[in-house]
Amino acid sequence: MARFTRRALLGGGVAALGAAGLGAVGGGTAVASRIPEPIGARTVEIHGAHQAGIDTSAQSFASFVALDLADGIDRDGLVGIMRVWAEDARRLTTGMPALGDTEPELAVDPARLTVTVGYGPAVFDAAGLTDLRPAWLKPLPAFPIDRLEERWSGGDLLLQVCADDPVTVSHAVRTLTRSVRSLATVRWIQRGFRRAAGTRPDGTTMRNLMGQVDGTVNPVPHSPDFDRQVWNPGDPPWMAGGTSLVLRRIRMELDTWDELDRPARELAVGRRLSNGAPLTGSEEYDDADFEATDRFGIPVIPPESHVARARPRTGDEQFLRRGYNYDDQDGVGLLFAAYQVDVERQFVPVQQRLAEHDALNPWITPIGSAVFLLPPGFGPDGYPGDVLLGV
Amino acid sequence: MARFTRRALLGGGVAALGAAGLGAVGGGTAVASRIPEPIGARTVEIHGAHQAGIDTSAQSFASFVALDLADGIDRDGLVGIMRVWAEDARRLTTGMPALGDTEPELAVDPARLTVTVGYGPAVFDAAGLTDLRPAWLKPLPAFPIDRLEERWSGGDLLLQVCADDPVTVSHAVRTLTRSVRSLATVRWIQRGFRRAAGTRPDGTTMRNLMGQVDGTVNPVPHSPDFDRQVWNPGDPPWMAGGTSLVLRRIRMELDTWDELDRPARELAVGRRLSNGAPLTGSEEYDDADFEATDRFGIPVIPPESHVARARPRTGDEQFLRRGYNYDDQDGVGLLFAAYQVDVERQFVPVQQRLAEHDALNPWITPIGSAVFLLPPGFGPDGYPGDVLLGV
Repeated sequence: MARFTRRALLGGGVAALGAAGLGAVGGGTAVASRIPEPIGARTVEIHGAHQAGIDTSAQSFASFVALDLADGIDRDGLVGIMRVWAEDARRLTTGMPALGDTEPELAVDPARLTVTVGYGPAVFDAAGLTDLRPAWLKPLPAFPIDRLEERWSGGDLLLQVCADDPVTVSHAVRTLTRSVRSLATVRWIQRGFRRAAGTRPDGTTMRNLMGQVDGTVNPVPHSPDFDRQVWNPGDPPWMAGGTSLVLRRIRMELDTWDELDRPARELAVGRRLSNGAPLTGSEEYDDADFEATDRFGIPVIPPESHVARARPRTGDEQFLRRGYNYDDQDGVGLLFAAYQVDVERQFVPVQQRLAEHDALNPWITPIGSAVFLLPPGFGPDGYPGDVLLGV
Repeated sequence: MARFTRRALLGGGVAALGAAGLGAVGGGTAVASRIPEPIGARTVEIHGAHQAGIDTSAQSFASFVALDLADGIDRDGLVGIMRVWAEDARRLTTGMPALGDTEPELAVDPARLTVTVGYGPAVFDAAGLTDLRPAWLKPLPAFPIDRLEERWSGGDLLLQVCADDPVTVSHAVRTLTRSVRSLATVRWIQRGFRRAAGTRPDGTTMRNLMGQVDGTVNPVPHSPDFDRQVWNPGDPPWMAGGTSLVLRRIRMELDTWDELDRPARELAVGRRLSNGAPLTGSEEYDDADFEATDRFGIPVIPPESHVARARPRTGDEQFLRRGYNYDDQDGVGLLFAAYQVDVERQFVPVQQRLAEHDALNPWITPIGSAVFLLPPGFGPDGYPGDVLLGV
């Protein structure tokens, strides 16, 4: 039953959310009448204690867009960008064209569109608030496995745009970047995908392009674990309800991965390919038993396997993952998106351990890296970061 | 009523197809019980008089993959490639992993997967059948508007892989290209998208990223027009039921397009942005009246507008369009895919006229071009082109 409850919560299907009264997903009428709402018409509430797109059940498509501030942008300029983005996002996420939308007919299908805004380190300097920048808001330490490329790294501002429709995402990204064109320029765009909406049952853990079930151990929205790992408790006060994003672009070496047989792959990961169960269990959500040994005394889950190395050593080393596959001219891989209160305390120790040793490392290479602060949610008159920049 | 019938046919929804007995879409049970079949479970029949993916109601995602033959590949080598692709496609399109599939768990959702195979000009030389190559199977003539890039042009073989799920497309492309790796290497991959399945009602004409309704004038599958324009009648006999594909990668200059106001855009296209109606009509499928003038005697649809210039001058100048949007590191645009019996008779005159003058030209630039022969359909023991290469 624990598993069922977890999956139902994780799933976040319209019916489940409606019944549980969780979140604010549009279309109460459709739920009431049991007619499924069309995928295009579904909406996610933009206002609240947290920005949307973090505890939102992952949409099928995501574009992560980094922008760099134009020279001379100060606090007023930042407030201007944020007000424009908030107003554009209010309209686009409800299926209305943005003000001055040049392709308004492409705005009709919100398809659970969310727009999540992030601040890079330079925002605090531009705003004259350098003293307030959290210690963790800086590039990650260099890891020996990294082969970082400038074109996928860094950035002053982030837009994370997610929806269940790729035209909606494309139009929203264009509209939001165009709206601030004189104030900030696009540094990089990373586009990712999961299964199409309606393909797999709600709550199914995604598979990455190596074929692995990816994201089983993840806090469940609206649980104490989630709240503790993801939402800043108010330290400093203006961050209450905010969080951080670490985005890593991880290239997969599929040609050599595909040379491994299935038992070798499962030993590298520590989980079964068939259903994601730990090698000591039979179902995806079974707890892994890192002490279990076979009749020769050899650990069933190898200590160098990915799950054994990634396993948190302290209660702090946990965070939310919400990754997306990529497959483009540049190669194939995973946009690994991790959300946590404190990057240094939660994310870095795990990444450090994996960089030192992880049986998967021969087939995964981080080629991009960026860290952003995701300000708290905002209200109908506010914008992302209004508690910091002042209203 | 003509419009309704047209849309119903174009739509190709499961229910419509089931009722009309057209095509072979899986899930008769679901239709019978009126429970919509999950998007992932839907299938399109691979065998028949024509290859699938041409008169198939356009799926949400398409990858067009060009490959070049390895040195020394002869007719036997070609037959080998085709047999492997046919066998892989038979399995993948029904939700089964390919033989030797390295990520079999990614094969579970066919999501209306189709695999359409094309022959480039070099296939006929490799097969020792140069004399049989149709006259139209060659690069298009150079057009003054072209700014073609080698990396998006040409190719010895084509795989057109379409499905309503992006993971399915990614996995199928990887599997099919991997299966023939020693025999043919990937030259380019062009990835496109439309609205997600379930977003818009079945049969809605797509919009491109300039915001235009794109593809209104298109033959309806299973109509005399479609059969005449698209399916080779048997000249030569081994092409009966086959067709051709012209794939043009058309970059859109959205920044300058967005500087135009709506009336100027509508005059450039000759159609309304709101619903795609011709400027002389009120509904999308109204016939355009190219003779109509306003009270000053000026044509309502400008003679230099896109629809006026594209309008067929003879009954021959017609073909099927089945395009996809692209939005990637390379820019934004349209993968313009045109299918016709004879490229020189049907496609080239229209393109020639548009290249000479089309009010849209300042905002659209062809940067890639390729022509392929799409062999007829095949049976359970056959492969694409078996009628040519011999079984």
